[in-house]
Amino acid sequence: MLHTNRAHRAGLPPGTLIDEVGAAPPRLSLVHYHDGSLYEPEQARLDDMQKLVANHEGVTWLHIQGQPEKALLEELGERFDIHPLVLEDIQSRGQRPKLDEYPEQVFVVLAAARWQHDAVRLEQFNLILGEGYVISIHAADEDRTGVLRERLSLSRTRLRTHGADYLLYALMDLVVDQAFPVLETFGNSVEQLEERLVAAPDRDALPAIQSAKRTLMHLRRQLWPTREVISRLIRGVQDEPLLDEELRPYLSDLYDHTIHVMDLLETYRDVVSGLMDIYLSSVSNRLNEIMRTLTIISTLFIPLTFITGVYGMNFGNNDHSPWAMPELRWYYGYPLIWLLIIAVVIGMLLFFKRRGWILSGRR
Amino acid sequence: MLHTNRAHRAGLPPGTLIDEVGAAPPRLSLVHYHDGSLYEPEQARLDDMQKLVANHEGVTWLHIQGQPEKALLEELGERFDIHPLVLEDIQSRGQRPKLDEYPEQVFVVLAAARWQHDAVRLEQFNLILGEGYVISIHAADEDRTGVLRERLSLSRTRLRTHGADYLLYALMDLVVDQAFPVLETFGNSVEQLEERLVAAPDRDALPAIQSAKRTLMHLRRQLWPTREVISRLIRGVQDEPLLDEELRPYLSDLYDHTIHVMDLLETYRDVVSGLMDIYLSSVSNRLNEIMRTLTIISTLFIPLTFITGVYGMNFGNNDHSPWAMPELRWYYGYPLIWLLIIAVVIGMLLFFKRRGWILSGRR
Amino acid sequence: MLHTNRAHRAGLPPGTLIDEVGAAPPRLSLVHYHDGSLYEPEQARLDDMQKLVANHEGVTWLHIQGQPEKALLEELGERFDIHPLVLEDIQSRGQRPKLDEYPEQVFVVLAAARWQHDAVRLEQFNLILGEGYVISIHAADEDRTGVLRERLSLSRTRLRTHGADYLLYALMDLVVDQAFPVLETFGNSVEQLEERLVAAPDRDALPAIQSAKRTLMHLRRQLWPTREVISRLIRGVQDEPLLDEELRPYLSDLYDHTIHVMDLLETYRDVVSGLMDIYLSSVSNRLNEIMRTLTIISTLFIPLTFITGVYGMNFGNNDHSPWAMPELRWYYGYPLIWLLIIAVVIGMLLFFKRRGWILSGRR
Amino acid sequence: MLHTNRAHRAGLPPGTLIDEVGAAPPRLSLVHYHDGSLYEPEQARLDDMQKLVANHEGVTWLHIQGQPEKALLEELGERFDIHPLVLEDIQSRGQRPKLDEYPEQVFVVLAAARWQHDAVRLEQFNLILGEGYVISIHAADEDRTGVLRERLSLSRTRLRTHGADYLLYALMDLVVDQAFPVLETFGNSVEQLEERLVAAPDRDALPAIQSAKRTLMHLRRQLWPTREVISRLIRGVQDEPLLDEELRPYLSDLYDHTIHVMDLLETYRDVVSGLMDIYLSSVSNRLNEIMRTLTIISTLFIPLTFITGVYGMNFGNNDHSPWAMPELRWYYGYPLIWLLIIAVVIGMLLFFKRRGWILSGRR
Amino acid sequence: MLHTNRAHRAGLPPGTLIDEVGAAPPRLSLVHYHDGSLYEPEQARLDDMQKLVANHEGVTWLHIQGQPEKALLEELGERFDIHPLVLEDIQSRGQRPKLDEYPEQVFVVLAAARWQHDAVRLEQFNLILGEGYVISIHAADEDRTGVLRERLSLSRTRLRTHGADYLLYALMDLVVDQAFPVLETFGNSVEQLEERLVAAPDRDALPAIQSAKRTLMHLRRQLWPTREVISRLIRGVQDEPLLDEELRPYLSDLYDHTIHVMDLLETYRDVVSGLMDIYLSSVSNRLNEIMRTLTIISTLFIPLTFITGVYGMNFGNNDHSPWAMPELRWYYGYPLIWLLIIAVVIGMLLFFKRRGWILSGRR
Repeated sequence: MLHTNRAHRAGLPPGTLIDEVGAAPPRLSLVHYHDGSLYEPEQARLDDMQKLVANHEGVTWLHIQGQPEKALLEELGERFDIHPLVLEDIQSRGQRPKLDEYPEQVFVVLAAARWQHDAVRLEQFNLILGEGYVISIHAADEDRTGVLRERLSLSRTRLRTHGADYLLYALMDLVVDQAFPVLETFGNSVEQLEERLVAAPDRDALPAIQSAKRTLMHLRRQLWPTREVISRLIRGVQDEPLLDEELRPYLSDLYDHTIHVMDLLETYRDVVSGLMDIYLSSVSNRLNEIMRTLTIISTLFIPLTFITGVYGMNFGNNDHSPWAMPELRWYYGYPLIWLLIIAVVIGMLLFFKRRGWILSGRR
Repeated sequence: MLHTNRAHRAGLPPGTLIDEVGAAPPRLSLVHYHDGSLYEPEQARLDDMQKLVANHEGVTWLHIQGQPEKALLEELGERFDIHPLVLEDIQSRGQRPKLDEYPEQVFVVLAAARWQHDAVRLEQFNLILGEGYVISIHAADEDRTGVLRERLSLSRTRLRTHGADYLLYALMDLVVDQAFPVLETFGNSVEQLEERLVAAPDRDALPAIQSAKRTLMHLRRQLWPTREVISRLIRGVQDEPLLDEELRPYLSDLYDHTIHVMDLLETYRDVVSGLMDIYLSSVSNRLNEIMRTLTIISTLFIPLTFITGVYGMNFGNNDHSPWAMPELRWYYGYPLIWLLIIAVVIGMLLFFKRRGWILSGRR
Repeated sequence: MLHTNRAHRAGLPPGTLIDEVGAAPPRLSLVHYHDGSLYEPEQARLDDMQKLVANHEGVTWLHIQGQPEKALLEELGERFDIHPLVLEDIQSRGQRPKLDEYPEQVFVVLAAARWQHDAVRLEQFNLILGEGYVISIHAADEDRTGVLRERLSLSRTRLRTHGADYLLYALMDLVVDQAFPVLETFGNSVEQLEERLVAAPDRDALPAIQSAKRTLMHLRRQLWPTREVISRLIRGVQDEPLLDEELRPYLSDLYDHTIHVMDLLETYRDVVSGLMDIYLSSVSNRLNEIMRTLTIISTLFIPLTFITGVYGMNFGNNDHSPWAMPELRWYYGYPLIWLLIIAVVIGMLLFFKRRGWILSGRR
Repeated sequence: MLHTNRAHRAGLPPGTLIDEVGAAPPRLSLVHYHDGSLYEPEQARLDDMQKLVANHEGVTWLHIQGQPEKALLEELGERFDIHPLVLEDIQSRGQRPKLDEYPEQVFVVLAAARWQHDAVRLEQFNLILGEGYVISIHAADEDRTGVLRERLSLSRTRLRTHGADYLLYALMDLVVDQAFPVLETFGNSVEQLEERLVAAPDRDALPAIQSAKRTLMHLRRQLWPTREVISRLIRGVQDEPLLDEELRPYLSDLYDHTIHVMDLLETYRDVVSGLMDIYLSSVSNRLNEIMRTLTIISTLFIPLTFITGVYGMNFGNNDHSPWAMPELRWYYGYPLIWLLIIAVVIGMLLFFKRRGWILSGRR
Repeated sequence: MLHTNRAHRAGLPPGTLIDEVGAAPPRLSLVHYHDGSLYEPEQARLDDMQKLVANHEGVTWLHIQGQPEKALLEELGERFDIHPLVLEDIQSRGQRPKLDEYPEQVFVVLAAARWQHDAVRLEQFNLILGEGYVISIHAADEDRTGVLRERLSLSRTRLRTHGADYLLYALMDLVVDQAFPVLETFGNSVEQLEERLVAAPDRDALPAIQSAKRTLMHLRRQLWPTREVISRLIRGVQDEPLLDEELRPYLSDLYDHTIHVMDLLETYRDVVSGLMDIYLSSVSNRLNEIMRTLTIISTLFIPLTFITGVYGMNFGNNDHSPWAMPELRWYYGYPLIWLLIIAVVIGMLLFFKRRGWILSGRR
């Protein structure tokens, strides 16, 4: 998380695409809909799409699942006149959510959240809105736009009756809403950590807290700009010709969703920042407990040891003096000492108890 | 508090209403007033209301107490031309206070505070202001708008002589003002916690502090936007045709009330954030007290044990040397040792006292 | 401080005045001045004042000292056409400083600071500026506007030659400047607390710190808005007909005074927030001192006790072996042991001293 | 620093000057320059200056070093038509940096930093820019504007060829730049404190940290507004007739200098706020060191004391049983015990060493 | 880092250049390109450049590597009409990133990051954009602009086909992107420090944390303004004649890069601010471990020592009483005592184990 793939680009001219090797080829899917008709070819081809777009009728949606290779990006750039910096941003995969307006297109980058291997992963989700078409590129294995294609296959949905801008909105809504279950899973893991800390603070707690802090930090940094993106889209409704005025309440609703996401993140932040306090307080409580018990035992025996020490003195060997430890010569001397010892123990225990150090319900 | 019911909606098209099962049916109450007349039917019916509203005379108020089912929301939507996103927001129950302006309506969401089972609960209070009517929907069991209906039944109140916008204001004022007693109850519980912490920090204190922190966090997050809602209403007075210019001082007054609520919340925040300090300091004071007492006892006896150890040595068995522990053979040897022991004890106690570790008024 | 008298108003219509019982009746004083003449009746009467104001000549100032009863407020409201919300605000006594502009009046609320019973008290000071008159209402026993009446009695002061807006300014200046001695007294008490904490942290320190924190919190919350009030007045000079352009430098000067108040408050805040650090560090220093002294004593005697233990062993009883504690049979055995003991003590003390644990100038 | 001389002014009408007694009389110096000529009279007189200013040719600069008495201020006020509030501000000496624009003048207050008696002192530096003249008043003993007079005496400097506004800038530049060596001296003292804390945290450290904190606090509060003053001057270039457009890059440069001052202050703030951490950590490290050493000694001897205790038991007196401490009757009993003791000591030391508690390079 | 070279300039007139001695002479390199032609003389001369610029054709780029001496700066100033404040800024080397617009030029200061001797170094990188030329001055030994000269030597790059503003952008892009590998190296060193702290907190950790804090502080303060510089350039595209509208997407892209840099810095800040927590917690864990082990040993032996003390008492010498320590006379007395001692040890160990203080996997 502390690293960046920027480091390897320093010195290259801006807008340069790099040849990347070894990734799985991306999967393309194309949908075109217009009035009542829906066209979804088995094999999505870019020249096909270019023709559909050139007709200026209906909406064409190209979805690319997986990281597109250099050649595909270059072809996209040429066919749909996409700025080289957009292509570089798509390839770099380290973008924060943002909105760039170009003369012919609107370029939106979002962060799609996923829970994988006990950690949150954020993947770049690119959206290009042009006149009558949307291109979405999701650099991840799992395709989660299937639900939209299903909705499109139903003829009477709102999706079918609106333009490309509504499709853009629907895709953004999908990406934003997928953050909720991921955040909840993260929230649950934080709550479990908190409970573990209160119960018994172990060695692994510190790294776990640090890790939760960083994940949260990462999430906040990646998701906060989403809000700005949507609020700029709302303001853009007025003068961006690609966006229809009718979209405004939907974008406002989406904005509310992102506020909700931020609220969750803020809540987690407060919880996570409290974890360290709980940990330290728990560690300190535990130490106190140990120290208290041990010290009580020590203190109990120290006066007793003194008593035995007294009668371990050798004054009794002096037979000439009646003052020389007469207790040693008493008939019941030894049992009396035991009585004294027992009395001291009981006295100390009562004193401890009155002070609430032992046998007290409170801590 | 860390959860959201958003997680279950991901993938659904926006504006979709869900069929919820098992809730108690909502209670509807309808009031229509105009000049001197007041009409309040036993049985509130939506077609009735639609006719009253269509007359363009007087003010019609529909209050729905309890969560409306899907069918009712759909009927409302159709009869009064309410945007599907508003209906979805009403159903979702997780909205923060907000203000949405639609061409025909103003939609206000507030959070109504309630104290229940030793905890603060916030319930969504929805308000729809249209031309000549107000629809208020409160997704909770207890109806707290009765006081307004009583005021309406008195013919010469300000409420009767003003329009629907004043009724909207009166409802908002009611919801905002109901926060005060709830906040005071919360404030009292925080103060009690603080006193408990100073007196004796127990094990349960940590979760109690965390819980107070979270409640406050929740309250702040839910109530802060109220301020924004009202300030937007004040600005809206100028160009929103549904709001009258005369309403401005009343809204300003309401704004002052929300500032007051925020002030209370900020005060509580400072108090709550100080609780952890008090707790840690209290725990540490308590440990110090234990350590001090115990260490004093130990230290007192350690030199005494040394003295008894000296005379427990067996040098006295050596009869040939006058240097071999002659003290053991003294006539008053044993009593002298006791005098030494007592002198050491008194000396140590005086030393402790001079340092202020025992018998000192201060800590 | 955590409470509010708002809680008892929930449900009442806005602008409602409550009948309050038991307070001392307020004292009214009326002054009217115009060119060279000054009229100050023994008995201030509202109908008198209404006539003076209706003449549209000179400036009329009504000061009400003490909380006005409901009847008086209602009479004021009727005679000078004051909005019911203003009257409610005057009665509520829990307002923060604010500025409300009404068509015929400007309503200013300030907080007058007073030092009473070792604590800061803030009282609501209400000011109503109308065409040619000022009404000031101070809900407290002690009248502190006497100094202004004295200045008015001198004919050639700036006060006599300016309008009602300058009188408003003079009253505000009076209220703001009275905060300085109060803040200094508070500052002194904080400094004394700090010195006490450094010297000897006692049990009462924690509540004292908390109390200073809260007082400061309260002061900041009540005095901050003053700045906003005055800056709005400065901006209001341009378009509010009741305020003259000539007033601007005076208001700027008053603004500087409030900045000064805020600066003092910020300085106190930094000091107060450092108190907890000093307290904890002081407590910890004190514990360290105790632990150190006690541990040194213990450590000193433990090796000695071991030595005496060695020669308390009964091997010497074995007469058959020359290896059986021959030391016991040495002629100078016992004095040698004492030499050993003394050598160990001196060695330990030197070691402690070299480490700087005893007899060290630092610490 | 917690006090203010405001407290003694409460109740006085604004713009009142007080008769102050006992200060040394201020020193006045007058310079007038125009084209090639420079006039610098031995004895600066205000009527002289008034005539020079009335000529509307060249630039006249009056510098007053030391606090001007009431009479002088009043004469200044009359001759150059200065607002009474400006005079009051000059006399009060507690102003923060600020800029007041009056119809005929621009009034600038800066804070001149000086290092005196191991502490930073800030003195009010007043600047009045009028048509063709600058009056600078510095309420301190030491005159530091001599360097400017020297530059003026050289005929071909930029200072001589520009107007009064450039002289104002040159004076401000002088005051701002004099902050750098003072801040560096302060920075050095903070660094020394930090080093002292790391080496050995003594009792005086706490007050020293608090004092550094307060000095910094004071500096920040007094120097921050300088930035605002200069940025307002830059904006004022456009519409303030007393300022020439050509001055803009010079003011921008001065603004960069204040940014630099702020940067230094922010850096110091971070360092100072870290001092408390270092102190606490150092105190705690020192306590740990003491506790560790002492506890090791105690622990080492406790098992040994047990061993000697065993053979101090009197079972050996029982001659009838072969089980009665036969060790006491062994030929090599006593040396074996010493071997046991030495073995235990070595074992414990090895254990301590393996755990890294003794003889370890690390702590 | 706490120092500044400003301190030595106080009192000098603004725009004064100082004669600096001893630095290596700067290396100049000149490139001029126009349509297809590229001219790169062996020996860069300023009069040459002046002629090329005067032709108003193509782009001329002068790069000065190393700190230019006073004479060179003055010559530059005269030939290209550069404001003396710009020259002073170039010489001072302590500037934060900034943008100054002059009538004929745009002056940009950036901070170039370099990793040297285990520390981050920031060097001032000056850029002057004039009509048809760019002058870049980098006050460091190592020339890192070579990559750009290489790109220029290729005829068909975007660099060759754009104007001087694109060259400015390319240089800024180069400087900003060089921050990434430096930041990564710093991030790695912070991560290593964190790991070291968790493993074993040693004495050197505190200074290392402080040093990381300061480096970060320094980086943030120097790099933050870069963002502002670029955002001002973007806004400047509209009305600054030296910048072309076509540059906007490139500057936006560069702005994204700086956001990325800031993100990394914020991430490091969170990590670094957590280091102190980890250190303190680690120190405290280590102390707890020591205290626990040692206290367990002590506690184990104290009751045993009491037992031996009991039988070290001399009551057994009393032959007349059957109550006088009959245990001493038992046949198996001594072995029984050993059994008792062993039983107590086992009991204590079991008790410790049950409490989880020994042999527990958890801490």
